[in-house]
Parts: sequence; C-alpha cells; structure tokens
Amino acid sequence: MSKIKSFMRKTSKTASISTTSPIDNTSLDTLSKIDTSVTTPANTPIEQTRWNGWGNVSINKKVSPHGAKLIKSHIGKTKKLSSVSLQKVLKTVPKSRLPAAMIELDTVSVDNEVRLRHARGQSFPDWIAMHGGDFKVFPDGVAHPQSTADVETLLKLASEYDLIVIPFGGGTSVAGHINPQKGSRPILTIAMSRMDQLIDLDIESQIATFGAGTQGPAVEAQLNAHGYRLGHYPQSWELSTLGGWIAARSSGQQSLGYGRIEQMFAGGTLVTPQGVLNIADIPASAAGPDLREMMMGTEGRAGIFTEVKMRVQSQPEEELFKVVFLPNWEAGKEVLRQAVQKNIRLSMLRLSNAVETDAHLHLGTTPSQFLAINTYLKARGLGSQKVMLTYGLSGDKAQNALALTQFKNLLKQHGGISGKLANLMGKIWSHGRFKFPYLRGTLWEKGIMVDTFETATNWHNIDEQMQQMQAAVQTALADEGEAVMAFTHISHVYKQGASLYTTYFFRAARDHTSTLSRWQKIKHAASSSLANGKATISHQHGVGRDHVPYLTAEKGKLGIQVTRDMLKSLDPEQRMNPGVLIE
Amino acid sequence: MSKIKSFMRKTSKTASISTTSPIDNTSLDTLSKIDTSVTTPANTPIEQTRWNGWGNVSINKKVSPHGAKLIKSHIGKTKKLSSVSLQKVLKTVPKSRLPAAMIELDTVSVDNEVRLRHARGQSFPDWIAMHGGDFKVFPDGVAHPQSTADVETLLKLASEYDLIVIPFGGGTSVAGHINPQKGSRPILTIAMSRMDQLIDLDIESQIATFGAGTQGPAVEAQLNAHGYRLGHYPQSWELSTLGGWIAARSSGQQSLGYGRIEQMFAGGTLVTPQGVLNIADIPASAAGPDLREMMMGTEGRAGIFTEVKMRVQSQPEEELFKVVFLPNWEAGKEVLRQAVQKNIRLSMLRLSNAVETDAHLHLGTTPSQFLAINTYLKARGLGSQKVMLTYGLSGDKAQNALALTQFKNLLKQHGGISGKLANLMGKIWSHGRFKFPYLRGTLWEKGIMVDTFETATNWHNIDEQMQQMQAAVQTALADEGEAVMAFTHISHVYKQGASLYTTYFFRAARDHTSTLSRWQKIKHAASSSLANGKATISHQHGVGRDHVPYLTAEKGKLGIQVTRDMLKSLDPEQRMNPGVLIE
Repeated sequence: MSKIKSFMRKTSKTASISTTSPIDNTSLDTLSKIDTSVTTPANTPIEQTRWNGWGNVSINKKVSPHGAKLIKSHIGKTKKLSSVSLQKVLKTVPKSRLPAAMIELDTVSVDNEVRLRHARGQSFPDWIAMHGGDFKVFPDGVAHPQSTADVETLLKLASEYDLIVIPFGGGTSVAGHINPQKGSRPILTIAMSRMDQLIDLDIESQIATFGAGTQGPAVEAQLNAHGYRLGHYPQSWELSTLGGWIAARSSGQQSLGYGRIEQMFAGGTLVTPQGVLNIADIPASAAGPDLREMMMGTEGRAGIFTEVKMRVQSQPEEELFKVVFLPNWEAGKEVLRQAVQKNIRLSMLRLSNAVETDAHLHLGTTPSQFLAINTYLKARGLGSQKVMLTYGLSGDKAQNALALTQFKNLLKQHGGISGKLANLMGKIWSHGRFKFPYLRGTLWEKGIMVDTFETATNWHNIDEQMQQMQAAVQTALADEGEAVMAFTHISHVYKQGASLYTTYFFRAARDHTSTLSRWQKIKHAASSSLANGKATISHQHGVGRDHVPYLTAEKGKLGIQVTRDMLKSLDPEQRMNPGVLIE
Repeated sequence: MSKIKSFMRKTSKTASISTTSPIDNTSLDTLSKIDTSVTTPANTPIEQTRWNGWGNVSINKKVSPHGAKLIKSHIGKTKKLSSVSLQKVLKTVPKSRLPAAMIELDTVSVDNEVRLRHARGQSFPDWIAMHGGDFKVFPDGVAHPQSTADVETLLKLASEYDLIVIPFGGGTSVAGHINPQKGSRPILTIAMSRMDQLIDLDIESQIATFGAGTQGPAVEAQLNAHGYRLGHYPQSWELSTLGGWIAARSSGQQSLGYGRIEQMFAGGTLVTPQGVLNIADIPASAAGPDLREMMMGTEGRAGIFTEVKMRVQSQPEEELFKVVFLPNWEAGKEVLRQAVQKNIRLSMLRLSNAVETDAHLHLGTTPSQFLAINTYLKARGLGSQKVMLTYGLSGDKAQNALALTQFKNLLKQHGGISGKLANLMGKIWSHGRFKFPYLRGTLWEKGIMVDTFETATNWHNIDEQMQQMQAAVQTALADEGEAVMAFTHISHVYKQGASLYTTYFFRAARDHTSTLSRWQKIKHAASSSLANGKATISHQHGVGRDHVPYLTAEKGKLGIQVTRDMLKSLDPEQRMNPGVLIE
C-alpha cells in the first residue's frame, strides 16, 4: 500500500449554489438551509479496495451453506483456484515507456502498484488475470488530473508523444473497457478519481455540476447535504463514477423512477484529441442530432468527460422497497408489463424467475427460515413455480400511496402474495443491494465461478430470448461434460420491453487458463443467442472489448460505419482507447 | 387542380396485429376486438390544401375585430400585400432537368403544379415567395414512393444521375427544410405521402410500425381504431408527418405526458445513399452511442425514413384541458416549475405572459365576453399583470384525480383563479388547438404579418432569455420607425427548464421584398438574442436553412464538425438536402 505515491490535492473548491430569486417560501427556505461549505465527501481511496477483486477490503459477504450446496447440486463438487500474491505480480510490471518529460509531471505516476491497480477491471477475464497473475499488459503510467485543463494538457502531450490513452473511472468495467493492450505506443491511463467534487448546484433548474470522477457514494453525499439526490444506483455504485456511467450508458436499480443515466446527463465537458467539446445543458432541442446522445456510450473512444451537468431531484419524501411472490413467471411478467404500461408510479420493478427465486431464498436464508417462507407460501398456493418480485416506491407520499394501491390491485389480480414478508424482505434487499458483488469473491474462494450476462428486448420477445439465453448458457460446456447453472431476472422495465439479467455458475477447471476457456465458451454461447436486431448486447454494462464481436448484429454494418466515422472525427489518430466499442 | 397526375396506389396492406399469448383477459379481450381490416384512414390529398398558405382549403379562422384592433394599436394601420394567382406562378416553372429515364418512372411526376406544390414550406420567406410569386427554384420532379424498396431505387438513380434529393413529409417546415436551391445538379423531391399506413401493431410491446409519410390525423385514426394512440400533437398535426417529426425532432402539445418525438420513436428504416440503415427497436441499450438519437434531427441530410416503429399507448380513460389565471408571470412560472419538479402527472402545461394573455382574450372573445372575463378576474384581484395558464390531464382517472388535487393546491398557493371559467375555456382551447395556424392567413389578408420564434432554456435563465428575445424583436425595426408587437408563452416544461414561444406582429411593407427584409431583421435579432450554449435555436421546429447561421452558438465548432462528419459517412457525395442543418 505504502508504495502508492501520495498526490497532493489542490485546495478543494466550494460548490457554488446558484438560484434566481425564487418567489415561494419553500425554495427560499431550502436555499437558506444550504451549507455551502460542504465539500468533504470524496471518493474511496484506491488503496482501500481489493487489488484482485471487488470492493472495499474491509467488506465481506458470506454465502449460506445451503445456498452453496444448492449450486453444487447443479454443477458438482468444486475445487478452489489458486491466487497469486500482489508482490509476485508487482515483479512482472515492466519498466515504463513514458517519456521522461511526462514522468516528471506532478499528475503522472509510474509506480508499479499504481500501474497494476489500473490495469484490470472486474470482468471474468480480469479476475482470471488477477488471480492467475498473468496481467499481460500494464499501463506505462497513470495520470490523476484535477481539472479539465489538466486533461487538456495530458491529451496534448499524448499527441506529442504518440501515446495510447485509456480513461479510467472507478475501474468497475465488466466488459474490458480499461485494459491496456499490447502495442508499440506507450499507454497512459488517465484516472479521474481526483475530480470528485460538486462544483455547482443550480437549485432552480435542478442541475448539479460534478467532477466526472465522482463515485456513487460521493455523488449522493454531496447532493444529500443540500437536500437533493441523483438517484442513480447501479450495483457497482460503491466504486463506479459519473463519467463511467455516462461513457458506458449505465442504468441504476431505480431507473423506472429516476431514469437511466441518459435521462440524467444534461451536458458537460468532453476533452477530445481535437479540443474541448462543450455539450450545452439545454432542456430539449430540435436543433439536429443530440450531441449528448452521440457522446454517451463512446466508452473513451471520443474523449474524456471531465465536468458533467446532472439533472438532480429533491430527496423523496418516502422510499420503500417490498418483495412479493406470484404463482409463476407469466403472472409476474404480466404484472410488470401492465404496471409500466399503465403508468403506475413505481421506482423499481424486478422479477426473478422460478430458479432464481429458489436460489435467492437459499442464498439469503438459513434452512429454517427457508422452510418457514416456503411453508407460508405453499399454504397460499405458491409452489415450485413461484417467482419473486421486488418493487420500490420513491417520491411524494400521496403519489406513492396511489401507486401502491394500484399496484396491489394488479398483484391481487395475478395471484400475488405478500403478507408480512413484503416489508421485511424489501428491507433486507435494500440493505444488501450493493453487497451482491462481494458474493463473487466468496464463491470464488469455494471454486464456484459466477458471472452474469444481460440484455434487453421487447415484451413480445422476452420469453423466447430468456429461454434461448439460458439454454445457450446451460449447454455451453456440454463438450466437457460440465453443467452450468443459470437463472434470470428482469431488472429494468420499459413500456416497450425489459432487460434480462442472467446469472450463471460453473466449476473452476484445473487451472486459470482452462477456467477462462470455459467462460469464453459460455460467453460466446450467450452472446450468440441474441436475436439479431431484437436484443442488445448490453443493456447496462457497455461494449468494452468483450462485446465488440457481437455489436454488428445489433447496429448493422452501416450503423457500425457511421459510429466509427463519428469517433474518428474527434480522434483521427485513434489514440483514445482503441479496440474498445468498435474495432 | 386537375393537372395533378393521379398516382395509382398499390393495394393497401392490412396491418398485422401481433401479440404473444397474453395471459390476462384484458389483453385477450382487446385482441379479439381488433378489426384488422381497418386501413382506410389516409393522408389529406395535397389538392385539398392551400397552394400558397396553411391547411385545408375549406377551413378558415376568423379574427375578432377587437383582436385585430389591439394588434393595430401596437403596430399602426396596415395595408394588405398583393397575392399572385396560381396560374401566374405556374408559368414560371421551368422545364424539368430530370433524365428521361426517371421521368418515365411511375413514381415520378414532372407536372408543373406538382413541382410547384412541393417547392415551398410554411416559413415566412415561403409565404412571401408564394404570395409574391417569386419561387426562385422548383424541384425538377417529385417522386411518390410507396415502399422502402421504391426509395432505395430512387436513391440509386439519384446517385447514377447525380441528383440532389429533398425528402418531403407534410411540407409544413417553418425553417426552410424542403426548399430547392439553385445549382447545376437536377433536384428530385421525394414526397412520402403515399406511405401513410399502419403496417404492424405489436400490442404486447405497444409498438406500431407506420409508413413514415403518415400525417397526424391518419396516425391517430389508424391507432384509435385499435384502442391506441401515439399522443403527438404539434400545432402542424393536420398535415405534418411521422417522418418529418422524427427528422426535425418535433414536440407536441402534450409532450409533458406523452413525451417528445424522441421518446416515441423506437427505431425503423432509414434509406441512405450508402444503403439501408435499420435502427433496432430495442427498449434500451448501453451498446454505444444511440443510433436513434444520431439519426433523429438529421433533417434529410443522412437519408429518408421510410418505415418507423413508434411507441404507442392505450387511449386514455379521461382527457381534460383547463384554463386558469394567476396574478403575474412569476407566480405562473413558479407553478409550472414546481408542478414538473414535483412529478405532478399532467399532460400539458402552458403559460402565456401578461401581454399574450390580454391578446388571446381579445382574439378569442367578443368585447362583451372580454369585459365579463376581465370583470370576473378583477373582482378576484387579478389585474393587468394576470397570466393565463392552460393545463391538461390525460390518462388513468385515479392518477388524473390525484394530479388535479395536487395541482389545484399548487395553484391556490400562488393565487390561481379558475372557477367556472376553467373547464369552458379549456374546452374552447382544445376545440381550436389545431386551428391557430389558419389565423396567419386571416391576418395576412389584413396586412398584419405574424411569425413566431421559439427556444428552450433552463429555469434559471428563462426570464432573462424571454426579456432579451422580446426586446430584440420589439426593437428590430426601429431603424424604419416600425413597431413590432411581441408576446410569449411557455409551451413545454421539463424539470430542468422550459421552452419559450414568442409570437410577433409587424406591418407589411410596400411590397414583398421589403416586407421580407423586415422579417429578416426581426429573425436575426431574435436568433442573436440567444445566450450562447444556454438556449437552443429551436426547441421544436428544427434548423432547416433559416437557423443554420446560429447553430454554432449552440453546438460549438467541434459539435458542428462531428455532426457534419457523421452525416458525410452516410452521404459522402452530399446529395441529400445539402445546406440544410449544417453548411
């Protein structure tokens, strides 16, 4: 740890809070209560995170013994993969190829541990690399800019010295967005972690300007202090950043109520190799294609977001999460579809299929709790086909009350059972909702490999897509005689359709390489199961490197061409994260 | 009229209605009631529209004498401009430069009246050209494709013969989108009016596929027959088309409830000079920049939308429009801002400033009605600063009831007065809401020139922008000693800000040329009043040719560059509508 060079922070700015004479007292009251000196909340220092796994080193999540047993009953006995030590990997970091003039910069570090910690994300291949110790390529240096001007300087130097540039947010990519690749050009990773402050809050327009490197908790803490929230809660929230969410088109747990990142991003500054692109934060415009939407999802290929203007909201009067059960998938799916198409104002709707429901009940309970819940539900007619539906309400109390009444009616029509379980299980879900990623490490230690695959498609195609995806995953290792356990939930709903999120478990093979080979087969099978032009290769994680081969099925050749030409316009020398998003 | 070549329609297709086994009875009921033979509603034949003005030849809208008097009290005595006859203009149409091989095509007409009727839109310069008779340039021919394949063929021929291609929807552009320009390449206008049918309706996903040339009334009639609606009602709704709305990023009167066209357009087919771009209708995707958003707003520069997939909704249980009055602009604005930021579920919110309120009351009433309303409001404390707020509710009855309660509370807090007037005036507004464009012709006949200018900006900047815009317009003819009357309303609200729609009146000058010159001064003054990067050059009408000089202020040089390069990718020979959107 101690080897990590300590960077001086520039004096932290005080956010400016702007408002034009609101005439009503409510606004004035809010304004007068604002403590404009609040600038303390900041990002988690990278030293506090695991160098070879997920999250904060002080946090662990246990798996229930009968949960692990259930998985093993599907995939067979498992054996733990070995893990190399940090010290051993550090010895494999080669000498930096950055020019001396860059190494001398205050903002640039060539420290081996810093480089190592910015070499990999959280994809399955990343975990294999981190545990097997075969990182392959490290960035030649890591820059920590503190301002847009710093980033501009870095990109000018990158052009001068012909460097590859990789933008780095929270390092939470599960698709290979930030991995340096072998090549002759030296690689500079630009880590945005020092740009983690609220810069301006326009209360009247509800627009907050942030440094793009701000992580989820620091975003909310700085807004909450003024009575506001962004409301974007992806599962990676602890570590992922505004810039990363925007660059990879993230979607949070409460997207139904708060929208995807696309609805929250109002504009901001993108530093490109061709100069600074200022995207105006205008509420709506008919003046040509939308620059916001052209730049969101560029995954570092067009430039680096430095300051971003986000649409924020007042803290909700009330926020509730509840869990209910329905007789089967069809009933649950129908409730979701009708709720969203009838404009029932919920903030979240998730539906686990029967296998996932059973697995979650195993993983989250003791055997006696599991029995109690199943007995309770069985007495009310819900058997092995039952599905678990988790929903949320967030906002105005009267609006929540109406939504709850309308939604409960819908549930009743489709055989939903909640009873006393609803609130308790909702609280448990809410309490643990950012802790699921920690389970991966716990299972890894048991030799149980876990990964996920997600897509979105229209309601018309949901069932077929889910079945194809699950079947593809389950049979992907048939040639090795290996079983894969898979289950699915709908995590985000739209009037038009929904996202599907499939989790799968398989056994570690004898070594890292052959385990990776198993994953590759499953990944390819799942990716190939997507119906051409009907289901996306990613609803919420982006393309990165892992999804590139499957993007043409979604966009078409001409769609790929026009996207590529658009990116080239801003990065003609193709130095920004080449190979990510589009070949 | 008779000279218009009659095109054979291909046998009209029957829309396919798809649904996958919905398990609830409601859906099944809906399905069984669908009459799949409904294909009759179609576009208004162009012969039924005015060749030199707005709308259906059989519709006129009168202006109240004391309304006209009010305008004249601001701008002075007026004198009618002369208008040339159709026969006279027809004589100015030159011989077509299209190659014989194209003229022979069934889909192509070189008839003079057809060419004349596709030469101009509805901008002020268009009206001057149409009434003065100086059209300058006509298309060399007009094609009426009936399928995507027809459009592909036409674009291939356009490439072969090196033609300029202008896509034509309803011809309702107010910014010069469809005007042919002088040049050596022959000009083919592709009119989409024959592609006006509902092709497919996926009830489960609520996606309707239409021919992109379908006009507003034909869209709604075909959907209403199945119990659905699109809900897009721009003021040009009678004649404007789906393709036009998408290509120019339209926004309808009830955008607050139903969204802008951007929220409705799910995907579809864009025929480009480089081939067909199929934009997948996936509910949401994190897979790179959004092709939908890259192609919306391209204004014919990238290609022609032929079939479009639209997100539709069930017909609302209830739809209401109401009009209330508030003491002043600040109070009204605060009500709008709070209503949208508090998620009160209204479908529409419009606020006229005090001058517009007074003018609307004059224009829509007799003197005795005017007096009665003013007396009623004055007795309740609302004087000359009063503002008129029009709002709508559309949807589920229980949701409407809650929204109404919450909104009435908000109105009360800010001194709103409705009483018996609210419903009556709401009905009057609703009844006449697509008739306002007819007023332009009525006023034109009196020598009163009228045009509008619209933008959108954040709440923080609304007042300053409105004042600057009005002041710019009002003083634009000071050098001629001419007064301009101007007033403004907010027509679309967002959490972040709102649109501003300014209407202005000025006197016709001695001839068409000098009247156009007056308009140019006003237009330039209004366009230049926009705060750089804070207000859009167009919230709902697009860029066309008239707004091109002002687009860089909004997008920045780099934003213009990346947009231009994106368009060139699909149209490297720059034959699609060159000069529109971006130089």
